[in-house]
Amino acid sequence: MFMTQSLHRAVRVHPRKIATICGDRRHDYATFHERVVRLAGALRAAGVKAGDRVGILSLNSDRFVEFFFGTWWAGGVVNPCNIRWSASEIAYSLSDCDTRVLLIDDQFLPILPQLRAQAPCLGTVIHCSDGPTPDGLSSYESLIASSEPAEEIVRGGEDLAGVFYTGGTTGFPKGVMLPHRALYVNALALQAAYGDMSGMIGLHAAPMFYLADHDFLNTLALAGATHVTVPMFQPKAVAAIIEKERVTGALLVPTMLQMLVDAPTTREHDLSSITFLFYGGSPIAEAVIDRALPVMPNVRLLQAYGMTELGPVATILKPEYHTGPGRALGKIRSGGQPCVICDVRIVDEHGREVPRGTVGEIAVRGPGVMLGYWNKPEETAKALKEGWMHTGDAGYMDEDGFIFIADRLKDMIVTGGENVYSGEVENALARHPCVLQCAVIAIPDERWGELVHASIVCRPGTSVTLEEVQVHCKALIANYKIPRSLELLDSLPISATGKVMKNKLRERFWSGRDRRVG
Amino acid sequence: MFMTQSLHRAVRVHPRKIATICGDRRHDYATFHERVVRLAGALRAAGVKAGDRVGILSLNSDRFVEFFFGTWWAGGVVNPCNIRWSASEIAYSLSDCDTRVLLIDDQFLPILPQLRAQAPCLGTVIHCSDGPTPDGLSSYESLIASSEPAEEIVRGGEDLAGVFYTGGTTGFPKGVMLPHRALYVNALALQAAYGDMSGMIGLHAAPMFYLADHDFLNTLALAGATHVTVPMFQPKAVAAIIEKERVTGALLVPTMLQMLVDAPTTREHDLSSITFLFYGGSPIAEAVIDRALPVMPNVRLLQAYGMTELGPVATILKPEYHTGPGRALGKIRSGGQPCVICDVRIVDEHGREVPRGTVGEIAVRGPGVMLGYWNKPEETAKALKEGWMHTGDAGYMDEDGFIFIADRLKDMIVTGGENVYSGEVENALARHPCVLQCAVIAIPDERWGELVHASIVCRPGTSVTLEEVQVHCKALIANYKIPRSLELLDSLPISATGKVMKNKLRERFWSGRDRRVG
Repeated sequence: MFMTQSLHRAVRVHPRKIATICGDRRHDYATFHERVVRLAGALRAAGVKAGDRVGILSLNSDRFVEFFFGTWWAGGVVNPCNIRWSASEIAYSLSDCDTRVLLIDDQFLPILPQLRAQAPCLGTVIHCSDGPTPDGLSSYESLIASSEPAEEIVRGGEDLAGVFYTGGTTGFPKGVMLPHRALYVNALALQAAYGDMSGMIGLHAAPMFYLADHDFLNTLALAGATHVTVPMFQPKAVAAIIEKERVTGALLVPTMLQMLVDAPTTREHDLSSITFLFYGGSPIAEAVIDRALPVMPNVRLLQAYGMTELGPVATILKPEYHTGPGRALGKIRSGGQPCVICDVRIVDEHGREVPRGTVGEIAVRGPGVMLGYWNKPEETAKALKEGWMHTGDAGYMDEDGFIFIADRLKDMIVTGGENVYSGEVENALARHPCVLQCAVIAIPDERWGELVHASIVCRPGTSVTLEEVQVHCKALIANYKIPRSLELLDSLPISATGKVMKNKLRERFWSGRDRRVG
Repeated sequence: MFMTQSLHRAVRVHPRKIATICGDRRHDYATFHERVVRLAGALRAAGVKAGDRVGILSLNSDRFVEFFFGTWWAGGVVNPCNIRWSASEIAYSLSDCDTRVLLIDDQFLPILPQLRAQAPCLGTVIHCSDGPTPDGLSSYESLIASSEPAEEIVRGGEDLAGVFYTGGTTGFPKGVMLPHRALYVNALALQAAYGDMSGMIGLHAAPMFYLADHDFLNTLALAGATHVTVPMFQPKAVAAIIEKERVTGALLVPTMLQMLVDAPTTREHDLSSITFLFYGGSPIAEAVIDRALPVMPNVRLLQAYGMTELGPVATILKPEYHTGPGRALGKIRSGGQPCVICDVRIVDEHGREVPRGTVGEIAVRGPGVMLGYWNKPEETAKALKEGWMHTGDAGYMDEDGFIFIADRLKDMIVTGGENVYSGEVENALARHPCVLQCAVIAIPDERWGELVHASIVCRPGTSVTLEEVQVHCKALIANYKIPRSLELLDSLPISATGKVMKNKLRERFWSGRDRRVG
């Protein structure tokens, strides 16, 4: 059970079929395979040995697909960097798991000096671009052209396939270790829900470092299907590529789907080729589905709820619950039912299963579950107990086995499909000289789903403005994590056990609304 | 990755859904689970420890489904006996892997004394019946009623899940060791080809010891679907149960499908509920498909080629190649393309891959492959090389990656240095108007090594001579492939899975001689 198996099959069964499409560049499976094995040769020459991490910091491209398979072919472990993070955060994630070889595209060249400074483990940096390569970097295309095809180092099963960093509640990212087994069965599970995907033209519009897109990528690969990439999500470009390449499937976060459906330019394009949309990260407003169906008349929508630690799928809301009589059942407000590879239960603080309809922590078991957090045995032991991943998400299971996420990590904000951990923003705020106490919560927003909101108690005699807070945070955390609104309070509501009661803070903003975060 | 995972999920998600239907008996998942854990309790009390084999010798029933899950829940390894074998062969298979606990139904009670005599390992024998239990045996239903639910012994991944005996070329069965991993991914692969099976009402009409039906059973279980059992295949009973229970899916071997389609009683029943027919074991005559479609107007046909050692699926011929424009491509004469969990290549006698279109041995790699043969390290080493299962089947891969199975290597005739594939000669013979059934085998010859020999069953009231057969074949196949001898038979020896047993036909000619087999 190893991730390159599908490549062996594809190159034997349909070498002339298109594997990747990136702008005007199209590679068939024979070419894709040739590039992968040469990239693997380059990585081996750069010192990558079995089990070594190889990073990538890049917008979406066909090279991103090659990166995954080339790294695995060389026996390596992928470490795709979160492109939304600050340079410090990225450097931390590279350094934490000792990534020595990094692929980088033009977009991120400007922060390379800071990465080198803060992640001294970095050795060879490979420049992925069609343009000239700066001094001191290796050119991706030159390496592909000049490297010998590598003999494959076969790793699989429980061997580590990737380290995927996820924002930690402590403010520091945690490296989720996923073995080949977890990625492989997740790719099978998505096909088990959808059926044969071998003819799919799949679009990577969500960032390719994102594990949900990665699962979609692995599924397409296992099916021997075609990958289409766009550098990043942009409604006009996405609608255009769907029409041009007759894209049949895509993974989007709900915010992207909404932006695509609502953009005036979308109506200029024919999206009737789309038969499958897989969305996750957060639930979807029913109004968005109603607006999406006329634009994509042949689409079947499938929601997945999960998390990086699950590789990532836990539950799936099937297409039939999105339309017609199935829609009327109201399950669309849930994350769906446990998928074929998962067993899900709702537990109390002692790990005991609670009755149907009772909110508790969502725990998940199955072959998609991670090995643990990189170098964090204590946090691993807290999360993984007897094979059960304790998600930290609160939810309940209804009588039909649908999982309703009551409050996805009580304190997490989901804005535009990105998870923002309030603790991390609070840590940044706390470093401002005027901030005495602070709490960060989600407030509702029509466009982004939720916005980051800061409640601050200032030190006596001081004050801050929203602008000052934003400038302060910009130096410390990614842009999307920065508070969009602010209120100054005399004190924060504190519980008997000394914790800030964020429910109380949220109440005013969410009154009369259901905050259901998937 | 363990086989009881699906049971945990099913009993949480849909405890009231029907799990098994056997005659008038219907058990929901809650009841099924309760019976499974009590059966596991009984097995533990009978001395079954983690990794111990538990056998079953029975016609199909709901208890057969319980047997699999009860054995796994107790930490045991299933050993389902081939019900078509002689008592000596069954005793050999029980004794070979030291099966001490056996479930047996009324049908097989008469051979129990012989089994006890020839398989002294046998201890507890559990009688599966609604009738009275003979002295010396334990009653299945009494054990279910009186046993305490067992704590689960969780085994999974590479742990052995089952030993499935398959006829050896030497006349002695070999025990194929399949781990949980192999059964699990095979169940996922079938769903990946078909899509969501959770709503399926699946019929077990093929013998449940047979690994193809077992894969179908595991797939239904993983999907949380419903199992319907009939004691054995019988066209009238099968048509009746399909109508009565609105069966939507089934596994059949082609012979069964043909019998079902051609039985006059079939027209008395409504088979329109059938949407999925999974067939394997041998390819299907196109005429049978043409006759099947009017009877089952909503059916999608899916062929799988494989073998016990692969757990069992290697290639899948998708529904679209059975009808319409896909049918016109002629791929229906193939076993299909490698399924998502398999990589397939065609190799020469030195293990080197041969060019497209060249006949060689079919070799298969993937997570469905067996651990090896029970207690047969030499035969294991011959079959399994660097993860590749050498199937012993001769075939070729066409330009589109479809695998055409030419012959079992042992059925191939080598005459004067030329390879003759018996299937090709049989296809030519079958076009003669007097030929009802035929089989072509190798017989020894001093001069040519082997000669092509035809065994023919003529249509009632007709006959053929060797000369007539030769003239007929000369127009269709090369001279060296034409039968050199002929025998007319009243019937051909047919196995449980509907295959002609060429070993039986060859016996008379090869007694006392060694035949080289690939």
